Amino acid sequence: MKNLLIASTALVMTAGVAAADVSVSGNGRMGIAYNSTDANTMSFTSRIRASIAMSGVHDAVAAKTGQSGSIYISGAFGRITMGDVSGAAESVVGDLHGVGMTGVGDFNEMSYLSNSDRPAMRYDYTSGDMTLAVSSDNPGAGSPAYSVAVGYSTGMYAVGLGYENAGATDHVIGFGSITMSDMTFKAIYGSASGGDTQYGVSVSGAVGDMGVSAFYVDSTIVGGASYGLGGSYDLGGGAKLVGGVAHTDTGAGQTRADFGVSFTF
Amino acid sequence: MKNLLIASTALVMTAGVAAADVSVSGNGRMGIAYNSTDANTMSFTSRIRASIAMSGVHDAVAAKTGQSGSIYISGAFGRITMGDVSGAAESVVGDLHGVGMTGVGDFNEMSYLSNSDRPAMRYDYTSGDMTLAVSSDNPGAGSPAYSVAVGYSTGMYAVGLGYENAGATDHVIGFGSITMSDMTFKAIYGSASGGDTQYGVSVSGAVGDMGVSAFYVDSTIVGGASYGLGGSYDLGGGAKLVGGVAHTDTGAGQTRADFGVSFTF
Amino acid sequence: MKNLLIASTALVMTAGVAAADVSVSGNGRMGIAYNSTDANTMSFTSRIRASIAMSGVHDAVAAKTGQSGSIYISGAFGRITMGDVSGAAESVVGDLHGVGMTGVGDFNEMSYLSNSDRPAMRYDYTSGDMTLAVSSDNPGAGSPAYSVAVGYSTGMYAVGLGYENAGATDHVIGFGSITMSDMTFKAIYGSASGGDTQYGVSVSGAVGDMGVSAFYVDSTIVGGASYGLGGSYDLGGGAKLVGGVAHTDTGAGQTRADFGVSFTF
Repeated sequence: MKNLLIASTALVMTAGVAAADVSVSGNGRMGIAYNSTDANTMSFTSRIRASIAMSGVHDAVAAKTGQSGSIYISGAFGRITMGDVSGAAESVVGDLHGVGMTGVGDFNEMSYLSNSDRPAMRYDYTSGDMTLAVSSDNPGAGSPAYSVAVGYSTGMYAVGLGYENAGATDHVIGFGSITMSDMTFKAIYGSASGGDTQYGVSVSGAVGDMGVSAFYVDSTIVGGASYGLGGSYDLGGGAKLVGGVAHTDTGAGQTRADFGVSFTF
Repeated sequence: MKNLLIASTALVMTAGVAAADVSVSGNGRMGIAYNSTDANTMSFTSRIRASIAMSGVHDAVAAKTGQSGSIYISGAFGRITMGDVSGAAESVVGDLHGVGMTGVGDFNEMSYLSNSDRPAMRYDYTSGDMTLAVSSDNPGAGSPAYSVAVGYSTGMYAVGLGYENAGATDHVIGFGSITMSDMTFKAIYGSASGGDTQYGVSVSGAVGDMGVSAFYVDSTIVGGASYGLGGSYDLGGGAKLVGGVAHTDTGAGQTRADFGVSFTF
Repeated sequence: MKNLLIASTALVMTAGVAAADVSVSGNGRMGIAYNSTDANTMSFTSRIRASIAMSGVHDAVAAKTGQSGSIYISGAFGRITMGDVSGAAESVVGDLHGVGMTGVGDFNEMSYLSNSDRPAMRYDYTSGDMTLAVSSDNPGAGSPAYSVAVGYSTGMYAVGLGYENAGATDHVIGFGSITMSDMTFKAIYGSASGGDTQYGVSVSGAVGDMGVSAFYVDSTIVGGASYGLGGSYDLGGGAKLVGGVAHTDTGAGQTRADFGVSFTF
């Protein structure tokens, strides 16, 4: 991606004209995966994705295609994004740190109301260390999820609080994180109307070329606890050895693991 | 698109070799839409498209991927295009001017016989102000639509006449247009075997950064009249504010509108 | 493709940084096809494909998107490829030479066991004129096909032998080829457990801008013999006139033919 972007930027400059930038980037992975509940527990896994990013000179217009697409316009008023975008609460609070090459089940992800009706729209405004976000899922679907969230972040600490509503359901979720010596610790607690709660803690960090991450989450929404541990080793040039293992005791229980090489281009 | 095309052209020249050009371009839009017949009349609308155009040095070979694809070879003999291409009559006569960011129902589009069986093939020959086009839909489908059309265009005036046949159905359609002071007025009249007729008028123009377009069309083929009005404001850098409203009295009637920002990259 | 690749490589060098390369290439074709068993025997055929190739600096990482995708990592240890890849036997022994613009039925292709469960993985090791390949289809599918093959190639001669197993079925297949005066002759013989055999011969070559290819194959697996003849003429700039005709006596028999222009970008 970098080189094509450089190429186009340089040529726009030499030509002295205002033009849009188009850049192509991608990522891929190859490896093996284990799933305790599959008939054949071991399988191969590979994926290659290319995405084309386009940006204009009119003070920030960008679009991204590929697996999902979104488009935004921004300026002193903030930024309005539309498409396959997260709701305000998910945008500010987010998920616990994930593990593995494929996410091994993505059990680290929290439940949000604002994930169903696309295209969604989100407005973000940042002033110094403060971020405000407001979002709505597509009103064309009927009873779309609305959300508002605020975040505060310094280099070392970050906190955020979000609220979501969809029909008769409310959801309040907040997080706090602290980063010390290249290690980030994060805690999330969410409470939905009807008495459902979800909470968890995670850590992610790097020591030289090594990376490590781990999480524990418990949720009455998905009906149980899950935990995972992962590691990586940077091979350089955009390639990484990555592996992880995770277990959930929801349903009949499931253990998943993966190992392989991930690439960014 | 421009910059990548420039980049590749420049480097081919410095390298002194004959090679094909590959360029990536795109467009996008974000906004809101209204449809009087939807259960939820208001909805978000967004779209991002990237297309890859490839052209060769052999005196005009081009291909385009993305939403639709076509490929052509051209020379002194004219141009043969195959793929997702319009028939000869539609290519020369075309549609009335459209309105809005999304087309708000595309009620400005005329009915043509040559739109069903792809890949289609069209031959175009241009000599001075004259254009001749001949086309066939895919014969593999059985009873494909055939079409022939001629057009004449000066800077100020343009006229064209097309004929289509598909099985037992014939269709003759013609247009005339005049451009004065950056405003283009267009009228189309079509008559199909069985007594069906379609006709309409439209106008499109620009005053500085402002754009305006409007159309009125009546057709026994779709069973009623439709009309629309749209406007735009050029924000520069490939971005435009665009909006439109259109109504059709076909069926139970429908009113649609949209407003938003469109981008080209 | 060449020019974008050149562009990015050049800029990486001038910038003095290690970065991944992203290049876009494509191919297309347009023409007519004949199939004796279709209700309408004549049809148009056209296709345009773009693919994005990404490669990294970590001594060979490449990915390809488009119709199919694969990704590999290589070094002194050899190359491991995963995704939409052929099994070892098919990789080394391959098919007979094909004919026509579209392959006109691909009757020149041999039957292999390793073609069903993706993503597959293959390991290749090359030392001088020798190639060793080992592969497995996705074990997640249950009873995946395994394969091992060896090849030996000089400029003039090439031979190879492959073995495949999938559940209770074994398959041994080998080839020999000789290249003289820009003409390559190839013979393949395969034998599967249960008494099935497949064998064939083919030739492909060029005389100046002209190309010619032909094959004959007989197989108890597909239940009959097939043969074909094709030719091409290089128009330059990546464009070629290509045509072919092929017949199979399997089933009720079928004759296919095509003619048109193919392009690479």
